[in-house]
Amino acid sequence: MGNYPLALTKIQESSYVLLFHTPRKKWLTKVASDKKFHTHLGIIDVSSIIGMEYGSAVRTTEGKVIFLMEPTIHDFIMKSERKTQIVYPKDLGYIAARTGLKNGSKVLEIGTGSGALATFMASIVKPEGHIYSFDVNSEFVEIAKRNLEKAGMDKYVTILQHDPHQGIDVHDADVATVDLGDPWTVLDQVYDALKGGGAFVAICPTMNQIEKTAAQLRKSGYADIACVELMIREMEAREGMTRPSMRMIGHTAYLVFARKVEKLQERIYQPAGEEGEEEKEEIENKEVSE
Amino acid sequence: MGNYPLALTKIQESSYVLLFHTPRKKWLTKVASDKKFHTHLGIIDVSSIIGMEYGSAVRTTEGKVIFLMEPTIHDFIMKSERKTQIVYPKDLGYIAARTGLKNGSKVLEIGTGSGALATFMASIVKPEGHIYSFDVNSEFVEIAKRNLEKAGMDKYVTILQHDPHQGIDVHDADVATVDLGDPWTVLDQVYDALKGGGAFVAICPTMNQIEKTAAQLRKSGYADIACVELMIREMEAREGMTRPSMRMIGHTAYLVFARKVEKLQERIYQPAGEEGEEEKEEIENKEVSE
Amino acid sequence: MGNYPLALTKIQESSYVLLFHTPRKKWLTKVASDKKFHTHLGIIDVSSIIGMEYGSAVRTTEGKVIFLMEPTIHDFIMKSERKTQIVYPKDLGYIAARTGLKNGSKVLEIGTGSGALATFMASIVKPEGHIYSFDVNSEFVEIAKRNLEKAGMDKYVTILQHDPHQGIDVHDADVATVDLGDPWTVLDQVYDALKGGGAFVAICPTMNQIEKTAAQLRKSGYADIACVELMIREMEAREGMTRPSMRMIGHTAYLVFARKVEKLQERIYQPAGEEGEEEKEEIENKEVSE
Amino acid sequence: MGNYPLALTKIQESSYVLLFHTPRKKWLTKVASDKKFHTHLGIIDVSSIIGMEYGSAVRTTEGKVIFLMEPTIHDFIMKSERKTQIVYPKDLGYIAARTGLKNGSKVLEIGTGSGALATFMASIVKPEGHIYSFDVNSEFVEIAKRNLEKAGMDKYVTILQHDPHQGIDVHDADVATVDLGDPWTVLDQVYDALKGGGAFVAICPTMNQIEKTAAQLRKSGYADIACVELMIREMEAREGMTRPSMRMIGHTAYLVFARKVEKLQERIYQPAGEEGEEEKEEIENKEVSE
Repeated sequence: MGNYPLALTKIQESSYVLLFHTPRKKWLTKVASDKKFHTHLGIIDVSSIIGMEYGSAVRTTEGKVIFLMEPTIHDFIMKSERKTQIVYPKDLGYIAARTGLKNGSKVLEIGTGSGALATFMASIVKPEGHIYSFDVNSEFVEIAKRNLEKAGMDKYVTILQHDPHQGIDVHDADVATVDLGDPWTVLDQVYDALKGGGAFVAICPTMNQIEKTAAQLRKSGYADIACVELMIREMEAREGMTRPSMRMIGHTAYLVFARKVEKLQERIYQPAGEEGEEEKEEIENKEVSE
Repeated sequence: MGNYPLALTKIQESSYVLLFHTPRKKWLTKVASDKKFHTHLGIIDVSSIIGMEYGSAVRTTEGKVIFLMEPTIHDFIMKSERKTQIVYPKDLGYIAARTGLKNGSKVLEIGTGSGALATFMASIVKPEGHIYSFDVNSEFVEIAKRNLEKAGMDKYVTILQHDPHQGIDVHDADVATVDLGDPWTVLDQVYDALKGGGAFVAICPTMNQIEKTAAQLRKSGYADIACVELMIREMEAREGMTRPSMRMIGHTAYLVFARKVEKLQERIYQPAGEEGEEEKEEIENKEVSE
Repeated sequence: MGNYPLALTKIQESSYVLLFHTPRKKWLTKVASDKKFHTHLGIIDVSSIIGMEYGSAVRTTEGKVIFLMEPTIHDFIMKSERKTQIVYPKDLGYIAARTGLKNGSKVLEIGTGSGALATFMASIVKPEGHIYSFDVNSEFVEIAKRNLEKAGMDKYVTILQHDPHQGIDVHDADVATVDLGDPWTVLDQVYDALKGGGAFVAICPTMNQIEKTAAQLRKSGYADIACVELMIREMEAREGMTRPSMRMIGHTAYLVFARKVEKLQERIYQPAGEEGEEEKEEIENKEVSE
Repeated sequence: MGNYPLALTKIQESSYVLLFHTPRKKWLTKVASDKKFHTHLGIIDVSSIIGMEYGSAVRTTEGKVIFLMEPTIHDFIMKSERKTQIVYPKDLGYIAARTGLKNGSKVLEIGTGSGALATFMASIVKPEGHIYSFDVNSEFVEIAKRNLEKAGMDKYVTILQHDPHQGIDVHDADVATVDLGDPWTVLDQVYDALKGGGAFVAICPTMNQIEKTAAQLRKSGYADIACVELMIREMEAREGMTRPSMRMIGHTAYLVFARKVEKLQERIYQPAGEEGEEEKEEIENKEVSE
């Protein structure tokens, strides 16, 4: 069935394991001999799991079943240390899908935050790609570095404690992500760092931010500007009683996408016509619901 | 600034280019000398763009501005040939984020469909990973092959016209995706093909499918079973007049995730307790809206 | 400016008042002389508010401002006593809007529950209309009666502790609402109780319920069958920092609407053609988002 | 079974009937003798239906089944004449539910638009209530009057072609609704027209509007300020194949609610504390999805 790398599914000392009981009761820990992991479901003898296969079950001292899962980037991110809001998997995934992030991509990140986005992007662009991440906050930078090391992504990410407004010494980036309170202030610097046609995305919690960012993008040599929000809802899928979950996340952030293009003399922006089309096709005419 | 590959941003003959005017007026075409591309905005002399940089602007014979974009996997998927429903970027991205898809991943795909999912996954797992995709429908297989070639992903995907119910000759897959009308019928075969702790995801348009799939997963050696739906909405971000778009996609499909674990004697399933917790924390007590 | 009733805006003994500090800190209480209302923001001397105008402000013993609001039906419902899930305002309102509920409407309610729906419907159909509500659970009936009295709606609602499967002694109802675990089992009885063209709505938490209910409706002399779900999200509207709330209610219930029509020999159902139209207008062709 | 009005379920000359074939093929027409109604499904002899009961079936000249429904306010609104966006049933219903609109309510409406909201509110507040509606646009006023007459609601609504900024000669209104491009400019005038504790709601398509309106409300003697958006999605409820509809309305408008209270010296606004609570209870801590 063709070439494929040998799957290393045995748990080794110093590697990480996700001790899984249920979706709400799971813990990420580093494997070490003589280690005992205490939970409210009992104690797990971590040393005894060395050499076991991922997916195996062990029991706590109280007899509760714990599955030994191999942590994914998703697990590392959800269990990461943070002093600031992480970027959520639904948004991480869409950023990757929309920007064409792939092995070998060179990525410029403005605003390292907790490192969640860098962690995820590194897992995609490695081994040939690299993330160059800028943040002025030394505390965030330290936390991000720890999170990246824990996830094994640190060698694919260079974090620079440097103010991007002063200029960005990165060239021909395939993708640029911006997670700042005022993304519209770095669009020129990011433009210069991107390759022609390179992808841009800003992560903006508020409406005010997307408004200013989109307006500034239109004036700064970017095209194909789009702004989206993704929502996720869990379903309780049980025989005879399937329904959506009663709670859900209301909002994480809006994502503003664009692509770097040639700057032209005349002002280029998404023609009002495009948006006008939408106005005319008023919902009631199409009888879509209600 | 460290090692990075030279960005090839010049348009070459036989490569693809996205001729971009606006989000709703864009075309994907193969670059060839002596080629003229006709649009309702005028004709584009495709041969003249050879050697130009991506991101550059050209004009049609009617003077309309066209930007020359380097197509991303997202572009290839949205413009793909299809006889069946594609898997959408919001779902593709989340699948990658949630399953920990990365370079080197070995993926089992049941149900090739139009090849959208395989195209995207290949872009993530290459160059060291591989997708093994099964479909019984020869027409879909042909279309998928064409789409994969167009996107340059064909060498990372092996499509087998074979009924997975008969057995799957794949071992230690990191990730398995199932896009069939009846995913609950292949869970055992997929189980055997996955590595311990390997990730599973089924793409299910209906609630009936998620109900049966989740129920069967619980009995088949899988844990951490979760079912989600993602929704996406565009925002019209215009100065002084920002609001959500008046139309949106109502639904694509539900995604059912799980992880392969050890099969135990007693029946292991998400304890009712977990779901019970949610029932008790009734919304009105928490005063979340309304 | 035409005839209008005098607004009674002064607080009277024995009437209810909503003591309002903030949306999350508000209390509904009956006004009585010599009453002191204790909150964690201090004590409110309730007797002193008699004769004051609604909308006035008083202070607690700790100096916190409390506004004296006249409770609306919405307030009574949100603060009602309950042993079962209430019907939420977003759903209550849509039920009224969709069924054409109005003054004089004669309503059949199957499943009294906590009385939230009856309370709301009574406020709409009074003074000339009436609600006939059936429930077999005496505990719910007692609680509902108390809630209805508190809201001043009791004289417009007759609650009958009677099993509707045995027959319903109501005729020519304008609207029928069903809030049972198995609504598809009373469709014939409800049919007989409705006037020709009368409106039907079932409140169904699960997908399984809407599936069975819709199927049975098609066979039981109902047309214009539609099933919807409403979602509500709060917005944090603050200058320069406007965004959606981070949490929201994921789901309350689906609503299944229909209208009673003449029973015909041949099987009448929503022609597959209608639904086929939708399948053909696949989203990707219309380029609605993504 | 108590007192109830006789249901007039027979179709009379000059009344309206909804000729219903399917949700997407239905027509509202006035009944007249010698009238023939032409549809693409055949001709309906309207005169022949006089005296028939609502809910009855007739056939077109091509043999298609048409049910004769009694139009609800919802039907009148969805089929109304309009030059401007109507207020949708999901929003109409919630406005009624949230403001405590009921028989006898005195309502101030700023911005008549197409009359959809006034039509709906009149159906709720009649016979003892009244709507006083202000609009400066004579064309809208004419259309609204026609829609109100068609729906039989005209005697409960007084439309005044008058600029509300000049002052509003209405007093002690129970509810005030504002549907203007700049609602924040009439808050003082509306304040004076409302009774103490009276309910306010503004219908705002954009985020910019809710931001300005909420800010101005806080400074103008209103409390309990909340902003929401409602979304509605249809479900295709078919046996074995139940799923949400593939298309849905993305957005209609945000609704900003508030209540008139006493004006106090110090600045009263929703304490930052309330919103701070929400920030702290970050989603990831509560493990709600993802």
